[in-house]
Amino acid sequence: MTLKLGMVGGGRGAFIGGVHRIAARLDGHWELVAGAFSSDPKRAATSAAELGIAAERSYGSFVEMAKAEAARPDCIDAVAIVTPNHLHVPVATAFLRAGIPVICDKPLATTVKDAEALVLLVAETGIPFILTQTYTGYPMVREARALVAAGRIGHVRHVQVEYLQDWLAEPVERGGQKQASWRADPAQSGAGGCIADIGTHAFNLATFVSGLVAHALLADLTAFVPGRALDDNAALLLRFQGGAKGMIWASQVAPGTKNGLRLRVVGDAGGLMWDQEHPDDLEFTPIGQPTQTLRRGGEGVVTASRLPAGHPEGYLEAFATLYTEAAGMVRRFRERAKPDQATMLPTVTDGLAGMRFISAGVRSHEGGAVWINL
Amino acid sequence: MTLKLGMVGGGRGAFIGGVHRIAARLDGHWELVAGAFSSDPKRAATSAAELGIAAERSYGSFVEMAKAEAARPDCIDAVAIVTPNHLHVPVATAFLRAGIPVICDKPLATTVKDAEALVLLVAETGIPFILTQTYTGYPMVREARALVAAGRIGHVRHVQVEYLQDWLAEPVERGGQKQASWRADPAQSGAGGCIADIGTHAFNLATFVSGLVAHALLADLTAFVPGRALDDNAALLLRFQGGAKGMIWASQVAPGTKNGLRLRVVGDAGGLMWDQEHPDDLEFTPIGQPTQTLRRGGEGVVTASRLPAGHPEGYLEAFATLYTEAAGMVRRFRERAKPDQATMLPTVTDGLAGMRFISAGVRSHEGGAVWINL
Amino acid sequence: MTLKLGMVGGGRGAFIGGVHRIAARLDGHWELVAGAFSSDPKRAATSAAELGIAAERSYGSFVEMAKAEAARPDCIDAVAIVTPNHLHVPVATAFLRAGIPVICDKPLATTVKDAEALVLLVAETGIPFILTQTYTGYPMVREARALVAAGRIGHVRHVQVEYLQDWLAEPVERGGQKQASWRADPAQSGAGGCIADIGTHAFNLATFVSGLVAHALLADLTAFVPGRALDDNAALLLRFQGGAKGMIWASQVAPGTKNGLRLRVVGDAGGLMWDQEHPDDLEFTPIGQPTQTLRRGGEGVVTASRLPAGHPEGYLEAFATLYTEAAGMVRRFRERAKPDQATMLPTVTDGLAGMRFISAGVRSHEGGAVWINL
Amino acid sequence: MTLKLGMVGGGRGAFIGGVHRIAARLDGHWELVAGAFSSDPKRAATSAAELGIAAERSYGSFVEMAKAEAARPDCIDAVAIVTPNHLHVPVATAFLRAGIPVICDKPLATTVKDAEALVLLVAETGIPFILTQTYTGYPMVREARALVAAGRIGHVRHVQVEYLQDWLAEPVERGGQKQASWRADPAQSGAGGCIADIGTHAFNLATFVSGLVAHALLADLTAFVPGRALDDNAALLLRFQGGAKGMIWASQVAPGTKNGLRLRVVGDAGGLMWDQEHPDDLEFTPIGQPTQTLRRGGEGVVTASRLPAGHPEGYLEAFATLYTEAAGMVRRFRERAKPDQATMLPTVTDGLAGMRFISAGVRSHEGGAVWINL
Repeated sequence: MTLKLGMVGGGRGAFIGGVHRIAARLDGHWELVAGAFSSDPKRAATSAAELGIAAERSYGSFVEMAKAEAARPDCIDAVAIVTPNHLHVPVATAFLRAGIPVICDKPLATTVKDAEALVLLVAETGIPFILTQTYTGYPMVREARALVAAGRIGHVRHVQVEYLQDWLAEPVERGGQKQASWRADPAQSGAGGCIADIGTHAFNLATFVSGLVAHALLADLTAFVPGRALDDNAALLLRFQGGAKGMIWASQVAPGTKNGLRLRVVGDAGGLMWDQEHPDDLEFTPIGQPTQTLRRGGEGVVTASRLPAGHPEGYLEAFATLYTEAAGMVRRFRERAKPDQATMLPTVTDGLAGMRFISAGVRSHEGGAVWINL
Repeated sequence: MTLKLGMVGGGRGAFIGGVHRIAARLDGHWELVAGAFSSDPKRAATSAAELGIAAERSYGSFVEMAKAEAARPDCIDAVAIVTPNHLHVPVATAFLRAGIPVICDKPLATTVKDAEALVLLVAETGIPFILTQTYTGYPMVREARALVAAGRIGHVRHVQVEYLQDWLAEPVERGGQKQASWRADPAQSGAGGCIADIGTHAFNLATFVSGLVAHALLADLTAFVPGRALDDNAALLLRFQGGAKGMIWASQVAPGTKNGLRLRVVGDAGGLMWDQEHPDDLEFTPIGQPTQTLRRGGEGVVTASRLPAGHPEGYLEAFATLYTEAAGMVRRFRERAKPDQATMLPTVTDGLAGMRFISAGVRSHEGGAVWINL
Repeated sequence: MTLKLGMVGGGRGAFIGGVHRIAARLDGHWELVAGAFSSDPKRAATSAAELGIAAERSYGSFVEMAKAEAARPDCIDAVAIVTPNHLHVPVATAFLRAGIPVICDKPLATTVKDAEALVLLVAETGIPFILTQTYTGYPMVREARALVAAGRIGHVRHVQVEYLQDWLAEPVERGGQKQASWRADPAQSGAGGCIADIGTHAFNLATFVSGLVAHALLADLTAFVPGRALDDNAALLLRFQGGAKGMIWASQVAPGTKNGLRLRVVGDAGGLMWDQEHPDDLEFTPIGQPTQTLRRGGEGVVTASRLPAGHPEGYLEAFATLYTEAAGMVRRFRERAKPDQATMLPTVTDGLAGMRFISAGVRSHEGGAVWINL
Repeated sequence: MTLKLGMVGGGRGAFIGGVHRIAARLDGHWELVAGAFSSDPKRAATSAAELGIAAERSYGSFVEMAKAEAARPDCIDAVAIVTPNHLHVPVATAFLRAGIPVICDKPLATTVKDAEALVLLVAETGIPFILTQTYTGYPMVREARALVAAGRIGHVRHVQVEYLQDWLAEPVERGGQKQASWRADPAQSGAGGCIADIGTHAFNLATFVSGLVAHALLADLTAFVPGRALDDNAALLLRFQGGAKGMIWASQVAPGTKNGLRLRVVGDAGGLMWDQEHPDDLEFTPIGQPTQTLRRGGEGVVTASRLPAGHPEGYLEAFATLYTEAAGMVRRFRERAKPDQATMLPTVTDGLAGMRFISAGVRSHEGGAVWINL
C-alpha cells in the first residue's frame, strides 16, 4: 500500500532533502528505498547508510540510478529531486525517460528553455510530475483560493506579496555556508538570486490564490551585499489579465525577518490577508462587515486539515519530539544502558503529579473552593 | 534501526491515536506493527487493516496483545496507549508486567491511588514509561525552561497559565460527539472534567518551565453547561515551594478560543511569555531592557529544532500534504486511471511559469527596470 | 460656554494631574482657572504660575480654596482631585460641602468607612461626583458593555481580567521615585497596594462591561519585593450574582508588561476580548461563527468616537505634537529669535517634495508606468 | 502665554478641521479666536458661533480675514489652513503676505508650480510655515528616525511603505460623501488621487525616517472603481541617492484595512518596522540579535512622550471622554435639570464598590486567602 520513493540529492548537510523525507513519511504513504544522495560517492554512500537504504540501492549518480531502478521489478514509484537548481532538469529528464514519476523541488530549472523542454517531455510521456511549491499545501492558502474562486471577494483588483528573510544580509556565502554558496552562484542557481529562490514562491502564491494570469512585469533587482553576483532583493510590479495589478517585494537581506511571506488580495467585494508565520489564520473582510479571522479547522472553513483548530500544525512536531526521545529511551533500555539523566521526557511521576493536581482541585472545589495542600 | 510500535486504542473516529501515529512516523524512528485498536473486535480488525497491520498482530484485547507480543521474538519495542482515561492504568499495567515499555497519553489515571500504584510498578520493573505531555515537546517551551534554569529571569515570583477552548460551550456530548461524550462521563474520565483534560496540561507546563514544586492549591470548578456532570471551567490558585504564587484558568466554554494555552512566568530579574497558538515565538524581557522576541531556530536560541526560524512547524505538514497528494497521483498513474482534474498539486507547467517569471524579472532588470510582457 | 475647572493636587512632578488637564482641554469644555496644586505652598504657587493661573486663584490649601471659590461669583464649576489617595475624601468633602461638583481620581478613599460617608454626602447634597475610572471612557470598552447588555454573548459565565505592569519589579520606592513612594506607603495609599492601585481598575472594568454584581471574593496578595509594606501582586477569584465566576490577576512586578490590561468575557452565546494596549480593537465571537474584529469607528460598531477607524486615538497626540512645536516656532518668530535648527517640523519644502512626488507619480503613470527622475 | 490661532476651512461636516482644533488645544499652547470656516457665509457664521468665536472675528472669506486680522493689535499668531487641497496655496499666500505664520494641512498644493512659488514666498518673507505631516509627530516614528540617524541599522538598503484604506472601495463619492467627493474631483484635489491623499504621507514617512533623498520613481496608478477620475490605488518603485531602493503601495480600496500605514526600513546592520495602527511599538533588529520591541516611554527609548509606556496615547482621549461627559453632568446640575439616567460616568457609588473590593481583598488575604462576601 505504501509507495516506494527514491531521492536524488539531500545528503548530509542539505536542508530541503530532510524536509522532503519528513513530508513523505508524515502521512505514511511513502517509504524511502533508494537514492543518489550526493555527487560525491563517499558522501552518497554514508548518507544512504544513515538513512537505512540498502547498499545496492544507493547509487553514485542519478543516471545510474534511473537506469537501475527502471530495470528492477520493485522499481521506485517516484523520485524526489532535491539537488541544487541546475540539476533539476537533467535529473528529471533522466527519470521521466525511464518512466518514473518525479517530485521536484522548485524552481523547475535555471532557464526558460530548459523548463519548456521539460514541459514538453512531461506532456509526451504523460508521467506525473509534481513541483513542491510548498505554500500551496497550507490549508488556509487553499481556503483563500477557495474563497476567491467562490467569488467571496468579487473581482480581484490587486495582489500584494511580501517575502522577507534576513539570512543573506551579510556575505555568508563567502564563509562556506553551503545553503548560501550555491544560491549565490549563477552556475548553480541560474540568472536569478532572490527572485528565483523566494520570488517564485511569492509569484506562485499570488497566482495560486487569485487564480489570475500575469501578462507583464517590471523588476528592480539589487545585489545589496557587495560582491554578490545575484540579486538579494527584488522589487516587482505585476499586471494581470483582466486589469488587476500586483506587487512583490522579495528580500533576503531584511533584518528581523525569517520567512516573512505575507499575501494580501484586494477584491471589489472583499479582501483577504494571510501571513505564513501564523499560517493557521486567514483574515477575510467582506466589504461593509467587520474582519473575520478564519481559523484552520474552525467555523466556516471548508478546507480539511489534520488537526482541530487552535492546535497549530507544529503540534505534530512537538508530539513527534516526544516519540523521538522515547525511541532513545527505549533503545537505551534494550541495550541495558543507563537511562539519560538529562532527558526532559515526562514520565509516570509527572503523571502522578497530574493526578494529584486533579484530585486536589476536585477536593478543593468540593470543600467550597478552599486551600488544599499538595 | 527503526523501533517497533504497538498501539492500544486509536481506532476509527479517534483523534489522539492518529496524532500519535503521525508523531511516531515523523522522525522515522518507529514503525507501527501491532495493535488492539478498539474494544469492539470488528472495529479493531477494520482499523488494523486500514493501518496496514498484519492480521495476526491485530488483537481483540489489550490483555491478549500484551501476552502475545511478549511471547514473540519480534516483540514490539513499546506500546502507545491512546484509550479513554480510565483504561490508561490497566493497559499500562498489563504491558509493564509483560516487560514492554509504555508511551501513554495523559492524564495518567483517573485516581491518585491508581497513579501511585503505577509509579510503584514502574519503579519496581525499571521499564521506560513516557507520558505524552505534548507541550513539553515544543522547542520554545524547552527554551523557556532553559532560560529559567539558567537564572535568566532570576527567582520566579508568579506563574500564570491560561488554557482556553470553546468546543464544549454547548452540550455537544448529548449529540453523540465521541470526543465530548467520554470526557463528560465521570466513569471514563475520572472526577475532573476540564481540570483533568486541559488543566493538567496547564499545571504540567507551569512546573515544567518554572522548575517549581507546588505545595498547595485552591480550586473553583464550575459546570456551566446545564446538566453536565463534570466541570467545564476551572479557576485555580497555586502556591509553590519557595514562595512563588500561580494561577490557572482553564475553560472549555470560552467562545472564540480554540486551544489558547498561554504561559507567563514572572521572575525577579525578568519575565517570559509563550502562547501555544504562535509557538515559535518566546517573549523574553530582562528587567530594564526592551522585550526580545526569541524565535525558534533564531538568534540567541539554544534549543534545537527541525526547521530554520520563520518556517513555522506547520511547514512540514504543508509539505507532507503535497507528498500525500503526489501519492494519489502516482497511484492513479500506476493503475492507469484518469488523472484527477480537481487536484491543486503544482506541476511542471507551474514550474515553467516560475521560470518565465524569473527570466522576465531578470530581463526587466537588465533593461533598466522596464516592463516586460509575460 | 466653557466650564471653569479647579484642581487640587497635580503640581510639578505629578503624573495624573497633567493627564487630567489634557483630558479637560481636549474637547474644549473646560478651562482651568484655579488650583491648590501642592501641599507645599511654594510648589503650589510655582505650579499655578506655570499653568497660567491668576495668582489670586492659586491657593495654599484645599480648605481655603473651597471656601474662597464658593464665595466668588465666578466660582469654579467643578474641582478635579488628583492628590494621593488618602486626601481624596477630605478634599471631596470640603468641596461638596461648598456646593461644588467633584471630579475625583480613583480609588475613592482609603477605607470603606470613608467611602460610605462620601456616598451619603453625595446623596444628601445631590451634587455631581465623577470618579475617573479611565477605562470606562474607551470607546471599545463601551462597545463591549453595549454588546453584553444587548444579549449578544448571552448570559455571562466567566469574566477574566489581567492587569500587568513592571515598574515596581524592583524597590524603586526606596530610590525616591515619587509615584512609587506614596503608593508603597500605607498611610497615603490605604491597606491595598497593587490591589488598590490597579486591581480596582480591573474590578471596575469587569463589572462595567459584564453588568454583573460581585457577591464574594478570595484574594491571595503578595509583596514580592523584599521590604515592601503593601502587596505588589494580587491573585483574586470572584463570584458574581447569578452564578458567573471571575478571576483577576493584577501585578506590578511582571517584567515586559507596561499597562497590560486585558479583559475576556465568556457568555453562553458568545465571547469578547479587549486589550488596552490595542484599545481600538474588540474581538467578538458569536458561538459557531468566526471571530470578528470590531474596530473603533468601523463596521457594525455603534459607540461614537472622535476619529474614523484605523486612526488610532494616538493620532490626535501626534497632531498635537506638531501644533505644540509650531507654537515654539511661532514664539521664536515673534521674539525675532533664530529659528531652531534641530526641529523636525515639516515645512513648506517638505510640501514641495510631496508635490514633486505626486507630479512625478502622475507623469510616470501617464507615460505607461516608466521611471521619472525627481 | 497662549498663542492665538485662526482657521480657514473646518466648518460643520469637515473632518480634519476638528482634528486640528483638538491638536491645538491638547497641550494648551493655542486658543482659537478667529476663522473663515466656510466659503458658504451662513455655514461660516454658524460654525464660528458653535466654536465660541466672537462674531467680529468670524469672516466671510480668507482674503477678508487675512487683511482684518493683520490690522488688529491682537492679530492671530498663526492661521491653520484646513480647506480642500486647491485652496491651500491661495490661502497660505494671503496670510504670508499679511505677515501671519501658517500651519497648513497636506498636500501643500495641487501643482508643483504653485508649491514652488510658495516655497519662494516663505523664503522671501521668513515667516514660519508648518505642514502637518501627521506621522512625523508620532514618538516612535521619531525614535525610528533617531535610530537610523545614529547609525543603529547601518546604511539603509530598502524602504518599504504600505498605506491601506478601504473607505473608497465603492463609489461613495457619488452618494454625496463630502470627504470622498472633493478627493475624487481633480479640480479640488489636483492630478493625484490616492497618491496625493495618502501616498504623500507614505513618501514623507519613508524620507523622514530614512533620511534619504529620492532621485527617481516609477508609478503604476489605477482607478479601480469604475467612473472614478483619479487613482485609488498606487504602486510605486523608488530609487534613493546612494543606491537604496524603495516601494510604496498606497490603496484606498483594500477591504479590511482602515488606516494601515506600515513602514519597514532595511539597513546593512539592522532593520526597523513600525505600524501606525499599533503606534506605540517599534520593532528593532540589530543583525545577529533577536528582534526587540521598543515601546513608547519604555526601556532604551530616547524620544519623549506625554504618557508612560503601556498607556496607549488613546488613554488621553478616554480620559477626555470622562471630562466631556462630566461637563454635561455639571451643566445639567447648574441648570437644575434632571440628571441623565443613561450616563455611563463612574460616580461615588462606583468608588465605594472599589473600596469594598480592596477591603474585602485585604481581609481575604489576611484570613489566609479565604472567601469573603461582598
